[in-house]
Amino acid sequence: MTAPTIQGIRAAADRIAPHAKRTPVMTSRTFDQMTGATLFFKCENFQRVGAFKFRGACNAVFSLTDAEAARGVATHSSGNHAQALALAAQLRGIRAHIVMPQNAPDVKRAAVEAYGGIITLCEPTLEARESTTARIIEETGATLIHPYNDYRIIAGQATVALELHEEIDALDFVIAPVGGGGLLSGTALATAALRPNATVIGSEPTGADDAYRSLQEGAIVPSLNPKTIADGLLTSLGEKAFPIIRDHVREIVTVDDEAIVAAMRLVWERIKIIVEPSAAVPVAAALSGRVDLAGKRVGIILSGGNVDLTRLPWTP
Amino acid sequence: MTAPTIQGIRAAADRIAPHAKRTPVMTSRTFDQMTGATLFFKCENFQRVGAFKFRGACNAVFSLTDAEAARGVATHSSGNHAQALALAAQLRGIRAHIVMPQNAPDVKRAAVEAYGGIITLCEPTLEARESTTARIIEETGATLIHPYNDYRIIAGQATVALELHEEIDALDFVIAPVGGGGLLSGTALATAALRPNATVIGSEPTGADDAYRSLQEGAIVPSLNPKTIADGLLTSLGEKAFPIIRDHVREIVTVDDEAIVAAMRLVWERIKIIVEPSAAVPVAAALSGRVDLAGKRVGIILSGGNVDLTRLPWTP
Repeated sequence: MTAPTIQGIRAAADRIAPHAKRTPVMTSRTFDQMTGATLFFKCENFQRVGAFKFRGACNAVFSLTDAEAARGVATHSSGNHAQALALAAQLRGIRAHIVMPQNAPDVKRAAVEAYGGIITLCEPTLEARESTTARIIEETGATLIHPYNDYRIIAGQATVALELHEEIDALDFVIAPVGGGGLLSGTALATAALRPNATVIGSEPTGADDAYRSLQEGAIVPSLNPKTIADGLLTSLGEKAFPIIRDHVREIVTVDDEAIVAAMRLVWERIKIIVEPSAAVPVAAALSGRVDLAGKRVGIILSGGNVDLTRLPWTP
Repeated sequence: MTAPTIQGIRAAADRIAPHAKRTPVMTSRTFDQMTGATLFFKCENFQRVGAFKFRGACNAVFSLTDAEAARGVATHSSGNHAQALALAAQLRGIRAHIVMPQNAPDVKRAAVEAYGGIITLCEPTLEARESTTARIIEETGATLIHPYNDYRIIAGQATVALELHEEIDALDFVIAPVGGGGLLSGTALATAALRPNATVIGSEPTGADDAYRSLQEGAIVPSLNPKTIADGLLTSLGEKAFPIIRDHVREIVTVDDEAIVAAMRLVWERIKIIVEPSAAVPVAAALSGRVDLAGKRVGIILSGGNVDLTRLPWTP
């Protein structure tokens, strides 16, 4: 398989259309005044399961042949991808095997179970997660759906930017967060095809800046002990996303946790919507002044809104 | 003056159109499943200054003659109306005199000042607020803009329901919160004109149930020591709103603070938007089971989203 074309992205959009939300685009006078730009916030926090991850998972699950689908899907994740895959599988009426570490919060396990996911717990190491997943796949014949290193996932995530460009014309910039790179690479592919004049910027926490360093080095530099409040962006850049990002993303802007929390709080206060720390990363990048956005039309992808409301980062 | 007609409400809509946001209507599978109804949430939390109050204030300010406007406007309020009036006056380029009690939180004073409002502090009693306001009006010739007991305000608040009915057809119910009654009476007037088959329901905190008791008695029963987390609904029903509500609202559903907080949290978690406790009151009413909504199309007016994010009601 090769990287998704715009035809592949449009096919993904058609495939997920019966299931995914076409999320709204919001604007904010406050943020426009702060940046001197016109910002368009694509609200994937309103997506099903509360994150863009549903798009990729849904595209992957509905891309399977009936014979493949009958054997189910599997992944290891304790984050939004786990819920997304469980829901996508439920909608297709097939099994989703989700491998989670024993120390995953109860609330995350409950969410996956609420969507009918079949959870297998394992030791909280990457090795245990991978070996447990491999065993389940061997036993069941399930198809592995990786959270980001998969062209079906990238094509699904690319539908966020597809919708954004369909709704908002003549964007000069699109800023997306980068963790494993599924969303950023999809954003880059859709933007290159639909609005080649626009510049795509990645945004990444300083404490998990492997994508930034990978672009500097010209080769993947894995994250070692990443540490950031933006827990959706701890993963290292995937092999499939890297060349797409290298070829189509102008730069990665890094922002520290203080800036991420401030941006998150400002979105809550001024736009009155709930975004998770990872979603505030491109907002923090836009506010950082590191890219000259004055007078420009800027798309910002708010990736998700799953937050523990009893533990907010600005309260002690 | 008499109560606003639908022509008056449409005139208000035209008057505020250059300034107010046309707020979106959101839906939620979770809430539909919980109620068995199809709910349409009209998001006034996204309105300017974060609440529907801007509509009424804007309509009142832009209804003034140039001679009246030149002498400014005045009100006593420490809530959303104060910010709303300050912004509306700023947009018309006139003075807004805002009388606030000395013990009003700094954050509310700062918000009014940010919109150019001229604050006069007074003793925290109703008498002091009224006498201070009267003195300012005598000295300046400013026009009093009452937060709710004013037909220009009622016509402005009615534009919320006007937009809701324009966007969502065939509603069976509309549920709005009631404090002073500006929003509920406006909702009732717009609904009676545009969708006479729909039933309008008021919703009120148990700890501030003067509208409920007023409808029972057939006459205004003022609030005595009201106590509720829904601080936007502490005021007593106004004289101008009362007959409109009596004639056009089927019932007032009361909900206690526990139900209000639970509904508020559910909106944050599932719709991913920020609403203040007062805005959660109609949601709690819809979830209460006290009105049979099964199979019905129900409009819910989310009145505002101004919350102190460092003190959430579900955290100790």
